[in-house]
Parts: sequence; C-alpha cells; structure tokens
Amino acid sequence: MTKKRVLSGMRPTGPLHLGHLHGVLKNWLKLQEEYQCFYFVADWHALTTEYENPKKIPAFSRELLLEWLAVGLDPERSVLFVQSAIKEHAELYLLFAMFTPVSWLERNPTYKDMIRELKQKDLATYGFLGYPVLQAADILIYRAEKVPVGVDQLPHLELTREIARRFNYLYEKELFPLPEPILAEVPKIPGTDGRKMSKSFGNAIFLNDDEETVRQKIQTMVTDVKRPRKSDPGDPENRCVAFQLMKLYFSPEELEEIVSACKAAQLGCVACKKKLADKVVEGLRPLWERRRALEEKPGLFEEIVNAGNEKARKFARETLEQAKETLFGSKWY
Amino acid sequence: MTKKRVLSGMRPTGPLHLGHLHGVLKNWLKLQEEYQCFYFVADWHALTTEYENPKKIPAFSRELLLEWLAVGLDPERSVLFVQSAIKEHAELYLLFAMFTPVSWLERNPTYKDMIRELKQKDLATYGFLGYPVLQAADILIYRAEKVPVGVDQLPHLELTREIARRFNYLYEKELFPLPEPILAEVPKIPGTDGRKMSKSFGNAIFLNDDEETVRQKIQTMVTDVKRPRKSDPGDPENRCVAFQLMKLYFSPEELEEIVSACKAAQLGCVACKKKLADKVVEGLRPLWERRRALEEKPGLFEEIVNAGNEKARKFARETLEQAKETLFGSKWY
Repeated sequence: MTKKRVLSGMRPTGPLHLGHLHGVLKNWLKLQEEYQCFYFVADWHALTTEYENPKKIPAFSRELLLEWLAVGLDPERSVLFVQSAIKEHAELYLLFAMFTPVSWLERNPTYKDMIRELKQKDLATYGFLGYPVLQAADILIYRAEKVPVGVDQLPHLELTREIARRFNYLYEKELFPLPEPILAEVPKIPGTDGRKMSKSFGNAIFLNDDEETVRQKIQTMVTDVKRPRKSDPGDPENRCVAFQLMKLYFSPEELEEIVSACKAAQLGCVACKKKLADKVVEGLRPLWERRRALEEKPGLFEEIVNAGNEKARKFARETLEQAKETLFGSKWY
Repeated sequence: MTKKRVLSGMRPTGPLHLGHLHGVLKNWLKLQEEYQCFYFVADWHALTTEYENPKKIPAFSRELLLEWLAVGLDPERSVLFVQSAIKEHAELYLLFAMFTPVSWLERNPTYKDMIRELKQKDLATYGFLGYPVLQAADILIYRAEKVPVGVDQLPHLELTREIARRFNYLYEKELFPLPEPILAEVPKIPGTDGRKMSKSFGNAIFLNDDEETVRQKIQTMVTDVKRPRKSDPGDPENRCVAFQLMKLYFSPEELEEIVSACKAAQLGCVACKKKLADKVVEGLRPLWERRRALEEKPGLFEEIVNAGNEKARKFARETLEQAKETLFGSKWY
C-alpha cells in the first residue's frame, strides 16, 4: 500500500529558531516516518508580504533548506523543494482562479485580519487576496491527503477543500482528494524575555547560533523576579520563563528535582540555566554537525535541492496534465 | 535597427467570420509588414468566461490558428502561438499579482460592465477580476511596445502600463517598456440581419463557410424593406444592410454606379447581392485554398504551431529570467 501524502511549507522570511524546531520541524520529522511528505520553501508566498523588499528571499530560502537538512529531514524519504522552481504551481493557481468566487476569498477571516495587523505594509493586493488559491494549488498539485495545520489555518484548508470540490464537480471527475487537517499540538515556546519566541521581538535563539551565543542568550532568560537571591525560595512553575523552556528539555523526574531544589532555595538561577543551556546545546549539536558536514562538501547541497525539485516537478507535472485533460477534455498542442 | 514589437491576441470562443476578418485580421496583416508581431490564441482568457464549459476551447483554438494562416499571417515573420503553451505567462501573472492593488482592478470599468452584461454566467471570480493582470503579463513578457486596441480597451492597456511602471519603480530597473496603443479604426461589419455580425446572433458569414453557404447567406441579407419590387426606387445608403457590406468590397466608382442603378430602380436586389456574393467569394477563395493546402499536408500545421510556441517560449523565458533577477536580486537554485 502506498503511503498517504502530506504537504507542508514554510515562508522564507528569516532564520529559524527554537520556536520553529519545537513548533514545526519536530512534527515534520515525525510525519516523515508515516507519510510520503512534500515540504516546500514557500518563496512565492513570502512575496505576498515582502514584495516591496524581496531581495532577502533567496538567502532565507537557502537557509531554510539547510536547516531542514540539519534537523534531519531525509531527502531520500521526503521531497524537499522550492515552490518557485515548480512553475506548475503558478499554472494550477491560474486555472483555479478561473472558477474561484471572489466572495470566498473576501470572507476568509485571516485576509482582513492580516491587512489590519500589517497595516504598515500595503497588503490590499490581488496576490494577497488570492493567497488561499495559490495555497490550494500547492496542496492539490501533489494530491496531498493530509496537511498539518494550526487551528487558525483551518479556514484556509477548508478553502482548499472547496476549490477541490468545485473542480471535481465542474469537470465531472474526482481528480483531487479533499485534504484533511492533521491538527498538531504546538507547544508555546517562550523567547528569552518571556514573550513568544520571534525574530522580530529580538528574543530568539536561532538554530544556527554558535554554542557561546546560545549559552549567553539562555543566561539572559528571565527567571523568577521575586527571587533576587539564591537563598530566597523560587516559584518556577508560575514565575520563571527559563522553566517554560526547560519543560521541553528535561524528563518529568528531572523537572521535579529542579522544582524542589528551586523552591527549597538550593539551586541558583545561574546554575540552573547552565543546566538548560547544556541540554539545548546538546540538542542543537547534531544539527550543527550535519550542517557543517553538508557545507564542507561543495555542490552537495545544490545537488540535493535540485533532486528534490526534480521529484516535485515530475509529480506536479503529472497532476497538471491530468487537470488540463479533465478540464479541456483533450489536448492538441 | 530592430523592429518594434506588437502583441495581440484573440479568444478561442467560436469560428471566425467576416467581422473578424475586416475588424482585426486585415489590420494584423498590415502590422506584420512593419513590426515584429506576436499573435496569440488567448485560451486562458477564454476560460475566464467559459470555465463552466471549456471543452470546446481546444477545437476553437485550432480553428483560430488555421484561419490566421489561411488569411495569410506569415509564421516566418510573425510569432503565432498558444498562450497556455507558454507557462511563463502564468508565472509572470503570479509575480505581478503580488504588487497589483485590488482597487486598480475593481475600478476597471469593463469589469463591472461585463459582470452585469453576462449575468447568466457567474463571473465574479478571482480569475475574471485579475483578467487585466494576466493581460499585462501577456503583453510585457514580450516587452511589446505597441498593442492594437479598440477605444473600449484603452483602460486595460493603461492598467498594463501602470503595472509595468510599478514593477520598474519597485525594483529599480526599467525592465518593461510602457506599451502604447495602436488605435485601429474598426469598420462596422453588419450581419445578415443588420445587427453587428456575431456568432451568437446567428447572422454571421464564417470564413470557413463553403461557397454555396456564403452565397445563400448573402442572398438572405436584408435590403431596402421599403422597396418590395425592383421597379421601386431604393435608398441603399440609408436603408440597405447589404450595401453596408458592399462598401468594404467595391471601389468608390463601383459603389456610385450601384447607388444610381438602385435609386433609378434599374438594379434588383437579387442581382445586386449576387454581385456582392461574387466579391465576397473572390475575397475568401485564397483563404479556402491556403487552408486546404495546409490541411492536405499531415503534420504541417502542428509543426508550424510548435515552432511558433517555441519562438514565443524562448522570448518569454528570457524576459521572465530577467524579471526574477531584477526582483530577487539573485538566483541560487
């Protein structure tokens, strides 16, 4: 039996940090065990918000792929590729555009939200309005059956399903499966200041930071502010940002030990964060090593990306041919 | 000095008739003498209105190209091609979408007009809204300097100019010329019933009608209804539909003769329309012959179309590469 297909992507708008690792990539690694996964760099999608300053997109795209490989995504099992290298996405987007009512797009809740949120950018563009149409093309061109999404993205996926349904209905063939969500539990990853980890907040620990930087950043993490001295008892579960991150890195037994020692004023914050830094560094070291190994072999990275693009292209082309044959009933040129 | 480039296209939504011949194709033949012309079958554009019933598009596309060649468009001098065979149009459409404000499209006067006019079709689609964006991609991907248009299409061309201007401004390079209109005088071609000649009115003389059909249709043309008998004097200039068509086929001297004879009740309508039919048939005969010659050589037509597509593709690809390099500043994959 062939595996079900999964599609997911990331927009190349900055370097990856621990938030991406725990929030997305660990999940991708798991999915790779069970499914035939297509993971793509959504550089055209990045253009929807970055069209005024797109020059950084290529470097960020490269960075994404390097980190995916560093994390352990396996290009032999998963198809890793770049959206803009597969022109077929653009063509399917155009075909879907023809029968997608504008009203479906206008009622998309994230459309008006994002226009309001990012009001310093001029996002009332045709491309931004059609974001879900392009997304439908991305998903359906691989006839993906499953799409990992957060709850907030469910309306987008529903639009993809509506577009698939409409195509199948109008052209009288069940060509596209209706993709189903895989609702991933996304752990909250705090940045060093306690807010959500984000490049734009300046509170992120990047996957490609070096060891010293990681250790320094972790030492700046906010701990229990009501515990100015080691000799004061702390309340890590309710007042310590570092502890929130520790939950991802220590076993329940280890955490219990840390909590008791902190509450008993036996473990100081500096020493405690040193323990955390050890764990984080230990977790990142294989990534750094894989990345270095990759960068040491000139041409290998490009070879991997080209091979991934080639696999994606072959699949996309096949679907597109079928879509055109279904739609036009024949092909003569 | 290289010739300036002209781009124009036709939507494959039906067989061609005398209206197309005199309204469009004769002009294309003239332009071919002076410019490097790109003429394309706008099959993706046809989808914007025909998406509910697209199965006829391939046959109509083939028909268009056959008639273009029959009319005497020269595939050695002009690039004749099919839009959907050049995926680069779809990609440039996608890139332009990213920075085209929705408001530019909503204020497009023909958008709301057409939605109202064609209200039996559901045209409030994303693709129909973006028609002018796709049109801009069609024109600019060949960096066309001139576009033959009717007055009613001037707003569309202005949108293409605005999109070119915005690209050049945002990405700081004068990559795209601002195409200028060639305003063609379009003669009014009456159908057999006096309304504008149109397939949907059932009053059209098709370029591929056979001689007998052409003669029959011309005999059904409405003449001066206030002249029931040959012995009544007629008023061809004001009351005769056939005379409107005659103006395109007879010299001023011949027309003068016909007018006097009609007014003097010396020339009957049947005989008069026979003269017209002779002229129309004489005008169509070279088309029929060229078409027959083409159809007699199996594979030749396909060869011509493929060669045209190949030329267009080469040019389009070059422009697209430049556009992407300008936009992204580099290319790494």
